[in-house]
Amino acid sequence: MRAGFIGLGNMGMPMARNLLKAGHEITVYNRTRRRAEGLRAEGATVAGSAIDACNSDVLITMLADDRAVRAVVLDGQLIPRLAAGAVHISMGTISVALAQELTTAHAGAGSQFISAPVFGRPEAAEAAKLVVVAAGPAGSIEKCQPLFDAMGQHTFVVGDEPPKANAVKLAGNFLILSVIESLGEAYALLRKSGVEPEQFLEIMTSTLFSAPVYKTYGKLIASEQFLPAGFKLPLGLKDVSLVLAAASDARAPMPVASLVRDHILAAIARHGEELDWSAFSKISAENAGLK
Amino acid sequence: MRAGFIGLGNMGMPMARNLLKAGHEITVYNRTRRRAEGLRAEGATVAGSAIDACNSDVLITMLADDRAVRAVVLDGQLIPRLAAGAVHISMGTISVALAQELTTAHAGAGSQFISAPVFGRPEAAEAAKLVVVAAGPAGSIEKCQPLFDAMGQHTFVVGDEPPKANAVKLAGNFLILSVIESLGEAYALLRKSGVEPEQFLEIMTSTLFSAPVYKTYGKLIASEQFLPAGFKLPLGLKDVSLVLAAASDARAPMPVASLVRDHILAAIARHGEELDWSAFSKISAENAGLK
Amino acid sequence: MRAGFIGLGNMGMPMARNLLKAGHEITVYNRTRRRAEGLRAEGATVAGSAIDACNSDVLITMLADDRAVRAVVLDGQLIPRLAAGAVHISMGTISVALAQELTTAHAGAGSQFISAPVFGRPEAAEAAKLVVVAAGPAGSIEKCQPLFDAMGQHTFVVGDEPPKANAVKLAGNFLILSVIESLGEAYALLRKSGVEPEQFLEIMTSTLFSAPVYKTYGKLIASEQFLPAGFKLPLGLKDVSLVLAAASDARAPMPVASLVRDHILAAIARHGEELDWSAFSKISAENAGLK
Amino acid sequence: MRAGFIGLGNMGMPMARNLLKAGHEITVYNRTRRRAEGLRAEGATVAGSAIDACNSDVLITMLADDRAVRAVVLDGQLIPRLAAGAVHISMGTISVALAQELTTAHAGAGSQFISAPVFGRPEAAEAAKLVVVAAGPAGSIEKCQPLFDAMGQHTFVVGDEPPKANAVKLAGNFLILSVIESLGEAYALLRKSGVEPEQFLEIMTSTLFSAPVYKTYGKLIASEQFLPAGFKLPLGLKDVSLVLAAASDARAPMPVASLVRDHILAAIARHGEELDWSAFSKISAENAGLK
Repeated sequence: MRAGFIGLGNMGMPMARNLLKAGHEITVYNRTRRRAEGLRAEGATVAGSAIDACNSDVLITMLADDRAVRAVVLDGQLIPRLAAGAVHISMGTISVALAQELTTAHAGAGSQFISAPVFGRPEAAEAAKLVVVAAGPAGSIEKCQPLFDAMGQHTFVVGDEPPKANAVKLAGNFLILSVIESLGEAYALLRKSGVEPEQFLEIMTSTLFSAPVYKTYGKLIASEQFLPAGFKLPLGLKDVSLVLAAASDARAPMPVASLVRDHILAAIARHGEELDWSAFSKISAENAGLK
Repeated sequence: MRAGFIGLGNMGMPMARNLLKAGHEITVYNRTRRRAEGLRAEGATVAGSAIDACNSDVLITMLADDRAVRAVVLDGQLIPRLAAGAVHISMGTISVALAQELTTAHAGAGSQFISAPVFGRPEAAEAAKLVVVAAGPAGSIEKCQPLFDAMGQHTFVVGDEPPKANAVKLAGNFLILSVIESLGEAYALLRKSGVEPEQFLEIMTSTLFSAPVYKTYGKLIASEQFLPAGFKLPLGLKDVSLVLAAASDARAPMPVASLVRDHILAAIARHGEELDWSAFSKISAENAGLK
Repeated sequence: MRAGFIGLGNMGMPMARNLLKAGHEITVYNRTRRRAEGLRAEGATVAGSAIDACNSDVLITMLADDRAVRAVVLDGQLIPRLAAGAVHISMGTISVALAQELTTAHAGAGSQFISAPVFGRPEAAEAAKLVVVAAGPAGSIEKCQPLFDAMGQHTFVVGDEPPKANAVKLAGNFLILSVIESLGEAYALLRKSGVEPEQFLEIMTSTLFSAPVYKTYGKLIASEQFLPAGFKLPLGLKDVSLVLAAASDARAPMPVASLVRDHILAAIARHGEELDWSAFSKISAENAGLK
Repeated sequence: MRAGFIGLGNMGMPMARNLLKAGHEITVYNRTRRRAEGLRAEGATVAGSAIDACNSDVLITMLADDRAVRAVVLDGQLIPRLAAGAVHISMGTISVALAQELTTAHAGAGSQFISAPVFGRPEAAEAAKLVVVAAGPAGSIEKCQPLFDAMGQHTFVVGDEPPKANAVKLAGNFLILSVIESLGEAYALLRKSGVEPEQFLEIMTSTLFSAPVYKTYGKLIASEQFLPAGFKLPLGLKDVSLVLAAASDARAPMPVASLVRDHILAAIARHGEELDWSAFSKISAENAGLK
């Protein structure tokens, strides 16, 4: 298929590369042009502007946050440039409210909108192992399935209203953050009781908690190796802020999310912005007087 | 092996039965004698008093809480009745502080103490699939391994200081409680956003969260089938109170545990004491205005 | 003095009226013109547009929230219309971040900016008993003192950087909200213990807690008379959201503010938007199973 | 009047002295006899044992905590030693549950029980300015009024069920603790925003918050002079633990109390046990990255 692709960050770059590998004809655009040029050798067409990436039937955006989507797509007037019936797929983690705004804008312009955020870190993006959560018009999702297949291991469709995919993505991120928080608290108790966290983790993950999220974060938090960061603390703050904004708009209190936000703020205030997002677990250790 | 066994509740009964099935010679005692008599046909000797259950080399207690252990073991003067070198294994969920008190009492009396709380609901006890977390003198644990093998699927040894096993057990219960809380909050957000919790759960448990604890509680909470209870709310309150007592003694703040306690109290205040302990997840739904 | 005044809501209307009573020459503007016309008989000049209110040396805005200030002042291009050296006084409760943005915009345009939010409900505005917290260029504040004197009982100057006044205002609102939360929790405990909240309140306010905030809210919450609202729940949500935004930008976790936000959300979800903002105290009562 | 007085700590000593000054005939007992001897010159009779302090019509106990009351009064078998119709007044801060237990024990023994905890620090005890909150049989309280008058500035009677006085005392302590918490959070925000806490405090206490509790703690927390302690952190932990125990028994969640407990634990874990109880406000500052 032919598609435009805007946003070649840590996630977007390997996603675009996988689309090219799968034989799709991709026109790429990135604010820092150098990154886009890097894909030319792999078959990409490099667009000179975001608008130049809009001349296919499909436009994929993989942008960092609401601000970027707002600047590029809405303020950049991309939607009116799409052909009638063309599909815009937004794959970044954005707010439920912005997904609703994009849905309305596309409906007014006669184009289709799919919200399709993904679960997975850059390594998963490189391995085409992302989990895609998509919502939008069923026919459009079906049409775009080959694109999703090139980037992910599985696509879950959660209905035809795009913002629902963002709600699912945010709820999923919330679960991850709450695992980090819980492990941080449990480890603090154990360390103050003379038990090695690794010993506890082995017991838990060989029984009730035998899931990747506990294995990965459980080991990371026990080792306290928060550098280099896979995903930095300010991105965690962005994610939990999106969760809390959705919770506020939906009138659904989420006290664990509030607590995670407070601990991320404390971690940034005390340790700066470079550590991995799981480093907010340190706050539980420090509040227990551990170094 | 020969052993005394005190405490034939929902957990203790199948545990004692499995010991008998495995060929061990068990003398059982229960406050309500009728339950003990039920095991006679399966080969048990029924003791007329707790003291009568103390004439083997091993005494197992599976009592409900600190109060019961204090009444039966300490106030009941069982420790001085044990033979020199005999082993007492406490398998119920008790406080770290009481485990320390028992350790000291046994040290003074010349007997051995193993703390060996278990993970698993009554079904797991029946299937001899409990997970045993044991701490105490290495030689004694080794000697008692055939008993643990008859009741559980695996024994994790976490050192020779008995209270450490209780710290691990409580930290594990805390992780379970925090999963229930997080799922409750995530589901409230999703339901208010028009997404079915089951759909979200399927995505999560087929990827990062593919662990029994999410599958079991995720389904239970989504269905809101909190009756009949596998484990009632007041037992959840007891467990989180033990976690908080350990946290207080260790000077390790655990804000998620505090939050869980508050939600369990609210659930009891609003819905009584009969619901399954996972029903405190309803508070998140109700605070979001859901029925 | 001559001044423009934009924003004739529940607060702005009596404030403008008091300026007229004190003999100042005021040109008023309000989006809904009818309210502005109501002041003509009291001596006001009615402006046909916001820009027409900018031809004095002083412009006062008393607008409801960031969105309104952004729309009227920034998007409405008022700043470039001010004469060189003219002063803009923003008196509404807005974010620290927007106060900073206005400071920068005025600095670029050669005009002066004073941030001067107020404490007090509409009754205090009518009685010219507001407490003004002002920050900005010392000379400008001095020049405008007659205006502040006409509206308030006292003006506290907290420095020459305008956003500091907003930080003080938000911190003050936070203290009020935390009093409401604490009283709600204390009353729930007392009612479940068979003690009348009024009895407790009398003891407290006749000793350590003899302050208007406890007397006013203590009585209101005990009586549960949340209608008609002096200040509705969504305004409480706006205020606590501003506190949390400031806390996030400053990297200063404020867990009580997070808790208040969650209880306000619950109150709106369960009881709608019409109740007085102090009605979020009901959530503590309801979570204790009280009706 | 003649009365026995047990417990001559920082509070009990000046209370007993004021009873003597007012002309009452007091027999004092203290575990460390030296402190009791110190009152002989002021007219006290020194008892050789707690039981010897029970031969008047009134027995006052001012003991530090539940453990002390349990040891001295219940385990010490004092109640059976009281004459028929004699009155026991417990003035320390103890749990609602223990007050209930004492009520029942006295009812069974034919003696009267008044629970009469006090508000006030040692300076207030010395100045006979304590605030007494009393509950118990109306006739007995009336009879003992001269004693209360000698120790306090005012006696509030909250009914005839003794535990209600304890509920009021604990709810009052909770309000004080929540003021400390709120000020700590507000100050952290302000300091990170470049505003001096003292400046904020002056504004607040000259308007809505003009109460002793804000003036005293507001200044203390702003100055960070937590040594020497008026009342140490572990006593704060004891108090908030009593609040939470009462909340748990009453099924009334108190999330601000949970938060305070966590911050007190963190303060003890990080700074030891010697600081004034208001020092838990430091945790908000430290979590904001302030030194």
